[in-house]
Amino acid sequence: MTDHSPLNPDYKTDVARSFAKQGMMQTLNADLTEVAAGSVTITAPIGPQTSQQDGFAHAGLLWTIGDSAAGYATLSLMGAEERVLTVEMKINLLSPAVGDRITAVGRVIRFGRNLCTSAAEIYTHGPNGKKHVATMIGTTTRLRPDG
Amino acid sequence: MTDHSPLNPDYKTDVARSFAKQGMMQTLNADLTEVAAGSVTITAPIGPQTSQQDGFAHAGLLWTIGDSAAGYATLSLMGAEERVLTVEMKINLLSPAVGDRITAVGRVIRFGRNLCTSAAEIYTHGPNGKKHVATMIGTTTRLRPDG
Amino acid sequence: MTDHSPLNPDYKTDVARSFAKQGMMQTLNADLTEVAAGSVTITAPIGPQTSQQDGFAHAGLLWTIGDSAAGYATLSLMGAEERVLTVEMKINLLSPAVGDRITAVGRVIRFGRNLCTSAAEIYTHGPNGKKHVATMIGTTTRLRPDG
Amino acid sequence: MTDHSPLNPDYKTDVARSFAKQGMMQTLNADLTEVAAGSVTITAPIGPQTSQQDGFAHAGLLWTIGDSAAGYATLSLMGAEERVLTVEMKINLLSPAVGDRITAVGRVIRFGRNLCTSAAEIYTHGPNGKKHVATMIGTTTRLRPDG
Repeated sequence: MTDHSPLNPDYKTDVARSFAKQGMMQTLNADLTEVAAGSVTITAPIGPQTSQQDGFAHAGLLWTIGDSAAGYATLSLMGAEERVLTVEMKINLLSPAVGDRITAVGRVIRFGRNLCTSAAEIYTHGPNGKKHVATMIGTTTRLRPDG
Repeated sequence: MTDHSPLNPDYKTDVARSFAKQGMMQTLNADLTEVAAGSVTITAPIGPQTSQQDGFAHAGLLWTIGDSAAGYATLSLMGAEERVLTVEMKINLLSPAVGDRITAVGRVIRFGRNLCTSAAEIYTHGPNGKKHVATMIGTTTRLRPDG
Repeated sequence: MTDHSPLNPDYKTDVARSFAKQGMMQTLNADLTEVAAGSVTITAPIGPQTSQQDGFAHAGLLWTIGDSAAGYATLSLMGAEERVLTVEMKINLLSPAVGDRITAVGRVIRFGRNLCTSAAEIYTHGPNGKKHVATMIGTTTRLRPDG
Repeated sequence: MTDHSPLNPDYKTDVARSFAKQGMMQTLNADLTEVAAGSVTITAPIGPQTSQQDGFAHAGLLWTIGDSAAGYATLSLMGAEERVLTVEMKINLLSPAVGDRITAVGRVIRFGRNLCTSAAEIYTHGPNGKKHVATMIGTTTRLRPDG
């Protein structure tokens, strides 16, 4: 985990503002649950509207929420004028995603000048408790206004 | 590309039936455009409801549609009683996804007894034509009723 | 991290015996430094014989040592008659690998009936101390004699 | 596949010169077999010195040769003063690597201003002919002298 301080003192507000602009998060009924420097948690319900063919949550729900969590974890450390873009991201699925909702906890592994490495852990929550169902890791890039 | 023949003569009908059960595909307004043995194409519109914060399509739209295309390409070769599950899947993003809609063309690279390798190419379509915006590759597993 | 107990009481001896059979480990002058249930550490020197063009350790040194560490971490939990095979493995490079030697610490994230998820962290060691230079994650499969 | 022209008219000589500096390629007895704009082939023998525990080629041989092939495919398109560095690279193994030698054919998928996407296909060659045993894809970055 990185120990960088955030470059933008208003990072909590700015991450929340950016999150509100992601139409995809609204379509998935996702909530921005927690924003810390280098770590962001997003929650989304599991239901028929995000299922795959066997009734589990579609892996795309996990990947999408995890990608946003990892990306916003990176954005939380960046300057106010910068934007974040995913370069590549891989998910390893550990268990079928069954339950009431998922949480994705994104964190920054390396905060570089241009390239960053971020990860996300995905958990399901339901009657049987909390379960680690997927792990993601990928590369993001920092885009500056003059870049 | 694999040269296996499909084990299930009704694979086109069965892939379509399975696709219709994916609530996530309906939420994303996705259509099953083409089903061949070992190759499946899915189309989905780009719009505000699937955007990221800068107005591009969220990478999660690309990953989700591509994962279904790669998974159904694998299912098209499998026995009628089998199910497919994604083990891991990575996306490399080549360009921001701008346009009217995306198509994801999934294909099977290796069709193994238990483990398969599948890929998907994602294209945007719009006023400026067709553009290759992402490439995906991953592992799927074949689940049998007695498995 | 998994909390499974090893199925093979002689796992330390068996991992060491298997390691001794990897010609690649000898070519890279690698040592099996530590074997615990679900976690294995391998060390290898950095030098001209494993360099890339700019004098850093070739990423292939890191990947190869990390793959063996992740694979043996998985093997440490498996039955005495089983073999381990890597299905896929990705490395994210965090920093150029400069120093005297690397250590790769492999660990099991999920120990499944057939498929396992393993990871490895790669560190350099040298005059400037220890540095985290790469992180790996991938899928391995358990092969049984009758499989 | 990219259709960019190489920025460096001496790219064939410069790729060969850089390859000759990779100590790792000499340790693995690898040869630079073919250099074209955006595509590079490297060959290496399979033998006891690069084996894993069951006598197959260690996946690390495939990854290392494939990483160099993908990296040099990218370098072939770059300016004379630039250097290439792997950011991340994933391998999917399709079949155990058995035979006399491997070839890795690297190619550029996207040649960006700073970030590139490259791939490599790995084949074995032996008494039973040529076989596709692995596929790799990853991100490389272009480093400029003033960068």
